[in-house]
Amino acid sequence: MKTLLLNSDDVHENAEMAELVPAIEEAFAAYQRGDAQMPPKSYIDLPEYNGDFRSMPAYLDAGDWDAAGVKWVNVHTDNEERYDLPTVMGTMIYSDPTNAFPLAILDGTELTMKRTGAAAAVATDHLAVADAASLGIVGAGVQSYTQLEAISTVRDIEEVVVSDLSEERVARFIDAFEDRFDVRAGSIEEAASCDVLSTVTPVESPIVSREAVGEHTHVNAMGADAAGKHELADEVLLDAKLVIDDYDQTTHSGEINVPYNAGVLTDDDIYGEIGEIVVGDIEGRTADDGITVFDSTGLAIQDVAAAHVVYEHADERDNGYAFDLLGLAD
Amino acid sequence: MKTLLLNSDDVHENAEMAELVPAIEEAFAAYQRGDAQMPPKSYIDLPEYNGDFRSMPAYLDAGDWDAAGVKWVNVHTDNEERYDLPTVMGTMIYSDPTNAFPLAILDGTELTMKRTGAAAAVATDHLAVADAASLGIVGAGVQSYTQLEAISTVRDIEEVVVSDLSEERVARFIDAFEDRFDVRAGSIEEAASCDVLSTVTPVESPIVSREAVGEHTHVNAMGADAAGKHELADEVLLDAKLVIDDYDQTTHSGEINVPYNAGVLTDDDIYGEIGEIVVGDIEGRTADDGITVFDSTGLAIQDVAAAHVVYEHADERDNGYAFDLLGLAD
Repeated sequence: MKTLLLNSDDVHENAEMAELVPAIEEAFAAYQRGDAQMPPKSYIDLPEYNGDFRSMPAYLDAGDWDAAGVKWVNVHTDNEERYDLPTVMGTMIYSDPTNAFPLAILDGTELTMKRTGAAAAVATDHLAVADAASLGIVGAGVQSYTQLEAISTVRDIEEVVVSDLSEERVARFIDAFEDRFDVRAGSIEEAASCDVLSTVTPVESPIVSREAVGEHTHVNAMGADAAGKHELADEVLLDAKLVIDDYDQTTHSGEINVPYNAGVLTDDDIYGEIGEIVVGDIEGRTADDGITVFDSTGLAIQDVAAAHVVYEHADERDNGYAFDLLGLAD
Repeated sequence: MKTLLLNSDDVHENAEMAELVPAIEEAFAAYQRGDAQMPPKSYIDLPEYNGDFRSMPAYLDAGDWDAAGVKWVNVHTDNEERYDLPTVMGTMIYSDPTNAFPLAILDGTELTMKRTGAAAAVATDHLAVADAASLGIVGAGVQSYTQLEAISTVRDIEEVVVSDLSEERVARFIDAFEDRFDVRAGSIEEAASCDVLSTVTPVESPIVSREAVGEHTHVNAMGADAAGKHELADEVLLDAKLVIDDYDQTTHSGEINVPYNAGVLTDDDIYGEIGEIVVGDIEGRTADDGITVFDSTGLAIQDVAAAHVVYEHADERDNGYAFDLLGLAD
């Protein structure tokens, strides 16, 4: 028995959204049913390096399959400038829950992008208007690509408006997708008036105003992952049917953390968790709904579910590099 | 930049005890000084598989070097019988704290054995009589080998007595060491009368009686790693100068957990933590001491320190397999 090493390319090629989106949906459902274990993230804070590490272990039982693993991920804000390295990097160990053998070690950076896109797609599927055809993206960084890749599997997206301060980033995004979509640069307001909007920025001061958002727009607020981050004006959140991925994580570090901790937004303003919608305990979009918002912080169960999809695929296709890490082969 | 993959052989060859033992001592010192971060282990319990996973993240700053990482380790008690796999397996991600790049992924199984032996050696160095020449080992399983390897770097061990219910395990142990030591099979009593005794069994009912232990024997109680485990008679613990690796871990799952939680052994019976001795806050063995006991549960900082030693060595010698996990090479 060997451990399969899956680098960024392997993860990219084996994380097909058509399979990943349903797997992430199953993960939300398992969590809601109580068929998942997700201990709180453990943090190691390194102010001397302007960074931190987080360890994210999880197990989930989706019924037909189960999966376990841990993602070790960091945020080092000086990395690009000082070391020419990404701010966020991840490494994932994916294990067989039956006997704990480490089936695979995966690039957790690419995996994070994929599972984050997939989560937005699950929310979009349940919360966007059925005939949504336009997608706005605010922030054209590394996390923006999987938003379009994933969301276009649940809605027939034709028109894409991408907004970013960097023309280079916008050009790169358009270049990647212009073959498949009618994609163009636009203002935040133009992006926010689309049927679906994904915000994927690290800002701490809201950049999407209440006026800019379309009457029936579904917003995926993906950018906030730490206390103080905040992309949408409070009025957007207060006027929306507001869905979160996890109560503890979103009130601590999600899009809602700033107004929540200021008392501007309370528990009564939260409609529910995505898992409740997925299992049918509460409804997704109804005819009466206007703006909807999904506040996504990213859950360890998403990583484990994504690793499951990638590993199964890669193993079937003989992708990756098989390595006898534990010296147990033969 | 690539990530170095270090399998069990690589870890074995690069974990030289002459370097590992001092590194583990530095880790205990850093922890004692407050220069380490070690969030509580996160557990995932899988009773349906008779197993569990633990994630053990840590950071330590030893002054001349610092190190970060996470070990993902399991205990699946049916593994040998059902899957021909070890009960305990581990995988370690070792990262550069400066920028979080994953420098290495290591076999955590071999690493655990090495760092456990090294911890016993640190304790033996501070607690055994200076002229200790005989070592008893009770339990000749996979963890027993590094006890001798490590302890023989801090004392001139000549005679070794190994005791185990399995003749096969005893024969294998003798075969491994008879070239270098006067090593023979013996009873628990014979092992326990040596200058140093290491107990490395998973028993839940004490097998080492008070009478068996020599007047000035130092005992490394290494076996207990879960609530209910217990190798030494309570009288050994109560009569000894009792040193632990960590208060929370030992009272929960170390050698002392059973008598401690029964109220037989109290905080007053604990002399101190190994880190306090290492930094000189309290004394190790003095002329007045009889039996000494070190209760070791194994700390995440030991894994990180061991990974540091192994990585530095392997990198220098071009050992291991360099893999572009994150797709950042060139």
